[in-house]
Amino acid sequence: VPEVLAGTEETTTGVIRLRAMEKDGALRFPIVAVNDADTKHMFDNRYGTGQSTLDGVIRATNVLLAGSRIVVAGYGYCGKGVASRARGMGAQVYVTEINPLRALEAVMDGFRVLTMEEAAREGDIFITVTGNRDVLRKEHFAAMKDGAILANSGHFDIEIDLQALAEMTGGERQREVRPFVQEYLVPEGAGGKRVLVIAEGRLVNLGAAEGHPAAVMDMSFANQALSAEWVVRNGSSLEPKVYNVPAEIDREIARLKLDTMNVEIDRLTPAQEEYLSSWTVGT
Amino acid sequence: VPEVLAGTEETTTGVIRLRAMEKDGALRFPIVAVNDADTKHMFDNRYGTGQSTLDGVIRATNVLLAGSRIVVAGYGYCGKGVASRARGMGAQVYVTEINPLRALEAVMDGFRVLTMEEAAREGDIFITVTGNRDVLRKEHFAAMKDGAILANSGHFDIEIDLQALAEMTGGERQREVRPFVQEYLVPEGAGGKRVLVIAEGRLVNLGAAEGHPAAVMDMSFANQALSAEWVVRNGSSLEPKVYNVPAEIDREIARLKLDTMNVEIDRLTPAQEEYLSSWTVGT
Amino acid sequence: VPEVLAGTEETTTGVIRLRAMEKDGALRFPIVAVNDADTKHMFDNRYGTGQSTLDGVIRATNVLLAGSRIVVAGYGYCGKGVASRARGMGAQVYVTEINPLRALEAVMDGFRVLTMEEAAREGDIFITVTGNRDVLRKEHFAAMKDGAILANSGHFDIEIDLQALAEMTGGERQREVRPFVQEYLVPEGAGGKRVLVIAEGRLVNLGAAEGHPAAVMDMSFANQALSAEWVVRNGSSLEPKVYNVPAEIDREIARLKLDTMNVEIDRLTPAQEEYLSSWTVGT
Amino acid sequence: VPEVLAGTEETTTGVIRLRAMEKDGALRFPIVAVNDADTKHMFDNRYGTGQSTLDGVIRATNVLLAGSRIVVAGYGYCGKGVASRARGMGAQVYVTEINPLRALEAVMDGFRVLTMEEAAREGDIFITVTGNRDVLRKEHFAAMKDGAILANSGHFDIEIDLQALAEMTGGERQREVRPFVQEYLVPEGAGGKRVLVIAEGRLVNLGAAEGHPAAVMDMSFANQALSAEWVVRNGSSLEPKVYNVPAEIDREIARLKLDTMNVEIDRLTPAQEEYLSSWTVGT
Repeated sequence: VPEVLAGTEETTTGVIRLRAMEKDGALRFPIVAVNDADTKHMFDNRYGTGQSTLDGVIRATNVLLAGSRIVVAGYGYCGKGVASRARGMGAQVYVTEINPLRALEAVMDGFRVLTMEEAAREGDIFITVTGNRDVLRKEHFAAMKDGAILANSGHFDIEIDLQALAEMTGGERQREVRPFVQEYLVPEGAGGKRVLVIAEGRLVNLGAAEGHPAAVMDMSFANQALSAEWVVRNGSSLEPKVYNVPAEIDREIARLKLDTMNVEIDRLTPAQEEYLSSWTVGT
Repeated sequence: VPEVLAGTEETTTGVIRLRAMEKDGALRFPIVAVNDADTKHMFDNRYGTGQSTLDGVIRATNVLLAGSRIVVAGYGYCGKGVASRARGMGAQVYVTEINPLRALEAVMDGFRVLTMEEAAREGDIFITVTGNRDVLRKEHFAAMKDGAILANSGHFDIEIDLQALAEMTGGERQREVRPFVQEYLVPEGAGGKRVLVIAEGRLVNLGAAEGHPAAVMDMSFANQALSAEWVVRNGSSLEPKVYNVPAEIDREIARLKLDTMNVEIDRLTPAQEEYLSSWTVGT
Repeated sequence: VPEVLAGTEETTTGVIRLRAMEKDGALRFPIVAVNDADTKHMFDNRYGTGQSTLDGVIRATNVLLAGSRIVVAGYGYCGKGVASRARGMGAQVYVTEINPLRALEAVMDGFRVLTMEEAAREGDIFITVTGNRDVLRKEHFAAMKDGAILANSGHFDIEIDLQALAEMTGGERQREVRPFVQEYLVPEGAGGKRVLVIAEGRLVNLGAAEGHPAAVMDMSFANQALSAEWVVRNGSSLEPKVYNVPAEIDREIARLKLDTMNVEIDRLTPAQEEYLSSWTVGT
Repeated sequence: VPEVLAGTEETTTGVIRLRAMEKDGALRFPIVAVNDADTKHMFDNRYGTGQSTLDGVIRATNVLLAGSRIVVAGYGYCGKGVASRARGMGAQVYVTEINPLRALEAVMDGFRVLTMEEAAREGDIFITVTGNRDVLRKEHFAAMKDGAILANSGHFDIEIDLQALAEMTGGERQREVRPFVQEYLVPEGAGGKRVLVIAEGRLVNLGAAEGHPAAVMDMSFANQALSAEWVVRNGSSLEPKVYNVPAEIDREIARLKLDTMNVEIDRLTPAQEEYLSSWTVGT
């Protein structure tokens, strides 16, 4: 077995864990946090996840988003993408957060921000994009309306506590009502309702759709490829830490992407370049 | 005259210059970059500038934004705010940028991104929010349509090269057509058109409206006040550098602001807190 | 005093009343319902009222719309315009209606539709655009939050029942807190709050701003002028009824307006024209 | 074979043809124009077509809509729905029209309106929703970019002139590149490009997706059922004409739909009802 010399990491969840490993002294080799490149997370996580998540929900359920109440748990880049697209499809969008700053941003972006306890009573569709576990759990299932639809577009299959949901149903009362849609029948004693879970609570855009479009994955993979090259060139000097994608790579990918879209942008004039680095002019 | 012991800086432009001073060894005392606090620039610059800039344009001109073509120069937080609100008012929005990453973000946000050379021919209203000089200059004025409206919401009065515009008019052919609106008559030989400049090319939200609403300035000023307190408490250990607002202050301001808006958010359960710092669970 | 021979009517409210007069046999001369021309109400009422209403609210209060909760009473063309622009400025928008069809349209457009009784407790800003009276009344004032802002952009000054509000304050506790903003102090016994009324409950876009932009009034006035000409030409054959603006006038105004905006559109090919009137081709 | 006594018609295209038949004296029995009920065309055509059309395009191609240039041909209810949703997904939307009024509405809604001749050069994705033939034809294919995607969501399979496209390719150079996506290779001599056609130019939401969600079809089918009942009850008095769905049916369906969504709306007070029918009060 060859020794691992270095790695690159594509996902937010992966980077969080690798940083935790670094902090615990458990990281054995250098890693490039590809996810944290601007040309990755600002595009893949936002525009990619935004579109493909709704695509997964629609393919699985063919529900009308216009007029529906969609609860988005988490307002990071993925959550921003999902919330923005859900509104763009005519939904009323509710956002839950645990971070005050992001919560405030969601408010100012025109979304209704509230606790999941409250949102659970109102939502028609719930989409978790948090990177955490048990975002939807027993007390929320208990409060939901009949026919609530649950999907996860964050990570793994633990954002929705399906074990708790299964227990509420007595463990047996489940059936597939459409491909990728599991119906949980919560008996009368525990609230009496149907709860619909898409793609077993796994990533809905991969489970019920085709994942992100090529037009965002190209930038993510360009980061992967160029980061791998960078690691090879600089490997000997790297320590077992999480490294950022170098800014030059990030910027170059953006430039190349614009080229492929035939978008031309402005260049600084010499006078503008000089002005930006000066501090002696002004009113 | 008492010695200056420390300072805080409110604006993007100011922080850029102070960092340039630090780099040149010209900074004599510590500065807290209040502008760079999330609770400042993500709100004041985006939602504040977004609303107050259009407010200034409308008060000065009473032009209908729906159906108009608005060119926004710069897609930083201020530019994002202006572009988003302009679209929200029904305008077709064009964005110019010099940074590929921001340009790409503008494209993905659904805006048409192009050079100012091209935009100059199409726009009805031009708004500069760049922090640089000469963003609108002679060749652009030459290409503009009759009746083009120019406003600056970036910094100072140099984003629009008014000297060049005055020279094109022969220096005399100007008149105030409405309060805060100066009409420049470019003679036939130089293109033959009227160009309307709001508030002498100074900040349009201050020059032609009332500046930002209190509901964003409260956070900016909270950063000022708490940063000043922090400087007093930590002054003896600070060097003549540009400091960031401490993250605890930033987060506390967000929390307090949500409180005043009666917005309640979720808290992590103990299991969630543990999960976020772990790296041993997962599929 | 010369006899009135015919008239034209600009407003929704006016047309409703003239039709009521016609129904009651009280109409003495022919009227052209200029308001009902598509090039009038679809533009003036929607894009004009949308922009100028928010302009009035912002000028009077300088309140931040982003993140605020705006209740729009009425979802006709004026209400659609106000709701759409309020959302475009970052507000959470609530809509009240008495017509199920319009209510459903508002829901599908992504707005939260509810009764005023419920909305009164949640709103920060209330805008009436109904054409009816007492839309905001005693029970609503009683439920409102401290600092609620009330504006009318519908008709007259009776959409907000200011008499009831004055009675709740004991008739004396009022003061102008900013130009065009009257603060009513509801004493502790009656709820204990401040309620802010803009422009005395009269049309906020006329009372606190400049009314509609010229770029929509041009179409309204073109309808007036061409309808007046049409009345003169056809006067002898007209009865004391409410007449619609002839479709040719309406369409010609749209065509002319596009011309002034340099917007070119497609023309039907002969094959397409033939196809549209046929019923023999198809799968 | 039993005699047909009456019918109901679901689609815009169908109603246009039936009215043409009535005009030509070719209609043999009464028809109810279900399509023209407000609770049908304002919802099914707009929100249903809006969502399901993009659903079809995404399923067939998995293309990223954010940042793409989508040309929508036709700005009736279907076109409004498609354009609105395309913008909501982050696309730059261009609209073509042959009707000046609708073109103007599209402009004021913030879309770029232009001729198809011009749009053909700029678009990435073209969606026809006109109800007419040859909307995309030879001269447009010739001007398109390599990789242009074509879809029809209007009627039949004649909005895109596929015969002309096939002739440009020499009739042979076609292949299925994904399910429901046919690639036409236009040889170098005729422009040298690939043109991708979804679902053979037939309705993309039926051909490549699942059609409209149940939550809009419910209203359309309610109109069908209640119109059929109405025809049975009134059949003897009906002539061979196209009849509108009675307003009471339309309104009742809206009321019932709101009920199923748990949306409660306001009712007129007696004073308000009286006011609406009066013409004696006012300022």
